[in-house]
Amino acid sequence: MTPRIAITGGGGFIGAMLARRLLSEPVTLGGDRRGDVGEVVLIDLVPPPADLASHPRVRTVLGNLEEALPDIGTPEAIFHLAGVVSGAAEKDFDLGMRTNLDGTRALLEHARAQPAPPLVVFSSSLAVFGSDPAIGPIGTVDDDTLPRPQSSYGVQKFIGEQLVADYTRKGFVRGRSVRLMTVAVRPGKPNAAASSFMSGIIREPLAGMRAQCPVPRDMPIALSSPRRTLDGLLCAAAADDTTWGSRTAMNLPALTTTPGEMAAALDRVAGAGTSDLIEWTDDPAVAGIVGSWPARFHTPRAERLGLHAEDSFDDIIRAYVADHGTTARDSTDHNEKENR
Amino acid sequence: MTPRIAITGGGGFIGAMLARRLLSEPVTLGGDRRGDVGEVVLIDLVPPPADLASHPRVRTVLGNLEEALPDIGTPEAIFHLAGVVSGAAEKDFDLGMRTNLDGTRALLEHARAQPAPPLVVFSSSLAVFGSDPAIGPIGTVDDDTLPRPQSSYGVQKFIGEQLVADYTRKGFVRGRSVRLMTVAVRPGKPNAAASSFMSGIIREPLAGMRAQCPVPRDMPIALSSPRRTLDGLLCAAAADDTTWGSRTAMNLPALTTTPGEMAAALDRVAGAGTSDLIEWTDDPAVAGIVGSWPARFHTPRAERLGLHAEDSFDDIIRAYVADHGTTARDSTDHNEKENR
Repeated sequence: MTPRIAITGGGGFIGAMLARRLLSEPVTLGGDRRGDVGEVVLIDLVPPPADLASHPRVRTVLGNLEEALPDIGTPEAIFHLAGVVSGAAEKDFDLGMRTNLDGTRALLEHARAQPAPPLVVFSSSLAVFGSDPAIGPIGTVDDDTLPRPQSSYGVQKFIGEQLVADYTRKGFVRGRSVRLMTVAVRPGKPNAAASSFMSGIIREPLAGMRAQCPVPRDMPIALSSPRRTLDGLLCAAAADDTTWGSRTAMNLPALTTTPGEMAAALDRVAGAGTSDLIEWTDDPAVAGIVGSWPARFHTPRAERLGLHAEDSFDDIIRAYVADHGTTARDSTDHNEKENR
Repeated sequence: MTPRIAITGGGGFIGAMLARRLLSEPVTLGGDRRGDVGEVVLIDLVPPPADLASHPRVRTVLGNLEEALPDIGTPEAIFHLAGVVSGAAEKDFDLGMRTNLDGTRALLEHARAQPAPPLVVFSSSLAVFGSDPAIGPIGTVDDDTLPRPQSSYGVQKFIGEQLVADYTRKGFVRGRSVRLMTVAVRPGKPNAAASSFMSGIIREPLAGMRAQCPVPRDMPIALSSPRRTLDGLLCAAAADDTTWGSRTAMNLPALTTTPGEMAAALDRVAGAGTSDLIEWTDDPAVAGIVGSWPARFHTPRAERLGLHAEDSFDDIIRAYVADHGTTARDSTDHNEKENR
């Protein structure tokens, strides 16, 4: 049963992908090669996809985080992906505080109470950054750019980073915070996230369906493929303390593109005319939110650890098609989680 | 009774000075000239100095913050100075989290429940900055330098800033966070703060007593006089929202000096040989803490609001002597609060 690894939000898209990858290859934790995972504990409000639910080395703990913690045992590593997403945290402030702030603190307290400090990989978000209305548009984000979060979700994630850093400094946990980019292309259905279109304008036309793009064709956006996002999470768990370095959160690499370039890539990969199924609508509300996020990242710290963005959006579409095909909506992504 | 202004930590040195100044001059709050203060509510674990305790426009609420909040009424402005100081927050992690994080959150929730959003001036600290051991010494701190706090106190203050910013963005309060420098020269007794010597090496020799300096003569340090510190807090309350600008915390101006320069200033102001009473000892633990703090600040944002540091440490000593004399330890500073 060793190593045992827990994933909060383990029923979601990223959590399930991470679980599959952990179960498929030997793992390295904090610089030590540990071999095959003994048990993956998936914590979520919803059950994981069927392949994981029935996997002999998977244990599922259903419930909200604070209820679930007593049942997770003493994992050597915890990937903390669970949280209330941006739209919901903005709509219901108290829910966001309770889940994203109190939930993270409860997780850290649980980890602190373990006999040995576990590795804790905290999934933060590029939403810690935003264009401060009193200052102006955010430019290129560097490793030491000051976050000025412009949403409750971003604030709660940034606070989570600080808690992870101090619990680590105190020796209560071995924490690493990584800031995830918008993940595209995601399988499944559209959702309420402002970033949802970044998957939808590829996924739906591939399946012969119409999709709306609510932002201008030439708006720069930063995104990361599911595969590169997993690379970042796994690297955070694998690195030894010295290699990982600062307790300050690490920005993961991003590919900067535009919806127009994404549409052109779609036509190159899936055939000319595929992108005709994209309706170029205009939604100032969505454009306002997406436009406040940083679109350009310079990530030397992540690159020193061997992490990098995909070279082109064409590659991201090809990987999506290889993993999910073109027509089927992934039945395993049954819950309506937002990206951020 | 209007305006009513509350001060948490109102029994401490800065809190009491702030109360006296609020009672002595017409106040401006959020851009509106409001005239004389109707009531100052002092919240602290300890009673305020006698002159304030007996003042007809002062009301004292004794107790810890969360106990006291129901009794503070609906102030139009709240100065949140209360907190567990650096040494105590480092020694007792849970106490620091409870007081500095949960206490600040409780205050913000209390303010949010008021009929109109009050001004909340949050006293943060230069302790949000620190030299990251994985990166190296912190250089000059600018308005957009990324804090990498290296103490629980610094983390808790930085989290408080984030909460104040988001409660403000949501319209729950009108918050302003200011990062205070080490305040010197403080009256009263030495205390356990690593920064205590920055007052002691002036205050004690002025009173004919020996004092120890635990850091090298040439170590650069940043500090602010009590008067300039009050200027910063009052400016934060007085500015209208547009003038105040970003919800990101504002660094207050600092005077960069060294213990050696401070000793020379002491001799100039109080007579040659006064600084002979300083014993230049070496305490690597104190030097390590103090040396991890930033010593140089570039504060254009504060300067645009008319704030500035004292021109010289000589002026700070003269102001101290004018306010407190040379011999008496200020009997009003009866509690053992640290500086930070």
